[in-house]
Amino acid sequence: MRKVAIVAAGMTRFGELWQTSLRDLFREAAGEALRNAGVERLDSIYVGNMSAGQFVGQEHLGPLFADQLGLAGVAATRVESACASGGAALRTAFFEVASGASDLVLAAGVEKMNDGGDVTAVLATAADQENEAYHGITFPGLYAMIARAHMHACGTTEKDLAAVSVKNHRHGALNPKAQFRREVALEEVMSSSLVAEPLRLLHCSPVSDGAAAVLLCPLDQARKYTDRPVLIRGSGCATAPMALADRKDPSHLDAVQLAAERAYEMAGIGPEDIQLAEVHDCFSIAEICCIEALGLVERGLGGRAAGSGVTALGGRTPVNTSGGLKSKGHPVGATGIAQAIEVFEQLRGEAGKRQVQGARIGLAQNMGGSGASCVVHVFERV
Amino acid sequence: MRKVAIVAAGMTRFGELWQTSLRDLFREAAGEALRNAGVERLDSIYVGNMSAGQFVGQEHLGPLFADQLGLAGVAATRVESACASGGAALRTAFFEVASGASDLVLAAGVEKMNDGGDVTAVLATAADQENEAYHGITFPGLYAMIARAHMHACGTTEKDLAAVSVKNHRHGALNPKAQFRREVALEEVMSSSLVAEPLRLLHCSPVSDGAAAVLLCPLDQARKYTDRPVLIRGSGCATAPMALADRKDPSHLDAVQLAAERAYEMAGIGPEDIQLAEVHDCFSIAEICCIEALGLVERGLGGRAAGSGVTALGGRTPVNTSGGLKSKGHPVGATGIAQAIEVFEQLRGEAGKRQVQGARIGLAQNMGGSGASCVVHVFERV
Repeated sequence: MRKVAIVAAGMTRFGELWQTSLRDLFREAAGEALRNAGVERLDSIYVGNMSAGQFVGQEHLGPLFADQLGLAGVAATRVESACASGGAALRTAFFEVASGASDLVLAAGVEKMNDGGDVTAVLATAADQENEAYHGITFPGLYAMIARAHMHACGTTEKDLAAVSVKNHRHGALNPKAQFRREVALEEVMSSSLVAEPLRLLHCSPVSDGAAAVLLCPLDQARKYTDRPVLIRGSGCATAPMALADRKDPSHLDAVQLAAERAYEMAGIGPEDIQLAEVHDCFSIAEICCIEALGLVERGLGGRAAGSGVTALGGRTPVNTSGGLKSKGHPVGATGIAQAIEVFEQLRGEAGKRQVQGARIGLAQNMGGSGASCVVHVFERV
Repeated sequence: MRKVAIVAAGMTRFGELWQTSLRDLFREAAGEALRNAGVERLDSIYVGNMSAGQFVGQEHLGPLFADQLGLAGVAATRVESACASGGAALRTAFFEVASGASDLVLAAGVEKMNDGGDVTAVLATAADQENEAYHGITFPGLYAMIARAHMHACGTTEKDLAAVSVKNHRHGALNPKAQFRREVALEEVMSSSLVAEPLRLLHCSPVSDGAAAVLLCPLDQARKYTDRPVLIRGSGCATAPMALADRKDPSHLDAVQLAAERAYEMAGIGPEDIQLAEVHDCFSIAEICCIEALGLVERGLGGRAAGSGVTALGGRTPVNTSGGLKSKGHPVGATGIAQAIEVFEQLRGEAGKRQVQGARIGLAQNMGGSGASCVVHVFERV
């Protein structure tokens, strides 16, 4: 298996980008990645996207986007795993380069959610249609049940949930690409409108438009394109029962733990080696469950991590220095690639006011649905 | 790059399967493939599916299907390239095994089209939304324009178009899995209702439900699972401008030619070595254009191939011995895998009354939209 590196990245601002279409978002992010690497050709493109078919009536994004880049002819395919589509696209691109079949592969993610569609209903198609969505449950409700289960099992409090949002907004205020570049106070979070008890508006990631792209090549060719390549040292993917009701313990994300174990094994490291992580905080409770399942904190102590500063910038293991899904925004198909870009920039020392000093190894964890699918990547500065 | 083999296959009947749900279709095909190989575990699953989100309100098929197989935990991802989704899933599975990362990967395809959705509108999301679909064009109209262009450029006749349907129904009548197991006469095709001039009802593939699955492993492990493995000797993928109006010659399928050239190059063979082929006859004109672009007949002579018997069972290069999309049916996401299964069974000598005697090398060509994406695989009996 060839070693694979990321050599360049490009990303739009995340937000309600009413004047930018799906294809424009892709072109902006992918074009920036190509220019940053100084390349004008590709062997292949993978696009992570959850549901452009439902959001804007457009499937078949592979050839559309190759064409939009002026590269019609290039192999191009869409990859979907709900909100983990970006991570899944990175993983398929990784395999194509690792296999030796291709030398220059773009992994991109994009979602255009603000275009008039019924966003909550579209997102609900990532849940089990027959056993969950059909009966009316939506994702705030599913994650509210996860939160209740975690409170019951581990003593997590509403203040713990709010502390995650406070931390991620503090980080996001430093990120020029973030949808919400402002801090929020604990009281503000705790008094925001209830969406699905105990989750309030400021525990929920927003509806966003955006795109992100990274360029992969074999490590031994990486210095043609950059003097600071970042190695993809491990890649893990896993699933869990689709419906929340079918899981033994809804407060523990089995797919996240399994995907992380697989990524750590490929990388030959353990969670204690991770110096910073981007994790999937679609709701604040998700960050709490994810850092436990990744092994970054002990089971049951996830709730206290944000409030105590362990996962804040300057803490032991900074989590979501980008602002996370909560503050940076969550254009679902783009999120997994955007997470990889934050780690890429951190490991290259390019994160500006969000910089984690001296970071050499970082992790990105991208999750689909209520945790039924998960993709984890471990990155290393080389 | 490791050599990769197909060691087992499973497939539902294709047709209007009103009593079988999306997940049931997958479970039937995938379960059969696993039983045929005698395995109860997998490293990874790729599912080709065009649009379950629009057809039945279900995205995120990877974890759902892993769960349905009783294998929650296994890595699982959906791959989409419109009607080429099955071929794209086979290709991504191929890379994962070729890379050395995984040893046992299922490539499946599934589509549930008969469930009350507006099929023509959903399929149109595989065209360019802004420049084609929004203005009202649907796929029969796009392929009708391709047919007119081919008639103009090459002298292809309405009788040539009809001969493709006659041949494929003759083949499909011999296939127990086919949606239409009956022959049609030339006069019957030529007098069937006009759908989009010059294309008539019996030039068009039907609306179908179905699933298909194949199991991949490294060639050097294949004999653990079967005594007749089939090598994936070449894989090629390509794109062309998305909108028909953006192509220099709408009667020539550039993406098909390019994908074939790439597959032939990886396989180290040429079109003259192909002894049988499954090609993407979503409309009869598509088979004519595809066999030309694949190099199986000379440019301009595609129209005469079916009528003269060159591409019929018993002819020089039998094409669509399964009945093709026209007679076997076209559950869009499943088609690419079903094509691979027909070649797999032919090369193993298991095709019954459709058997091409002594075939050693075969090809499968799967296409998205009006030819904007294409995946070609070359298979060899080993």
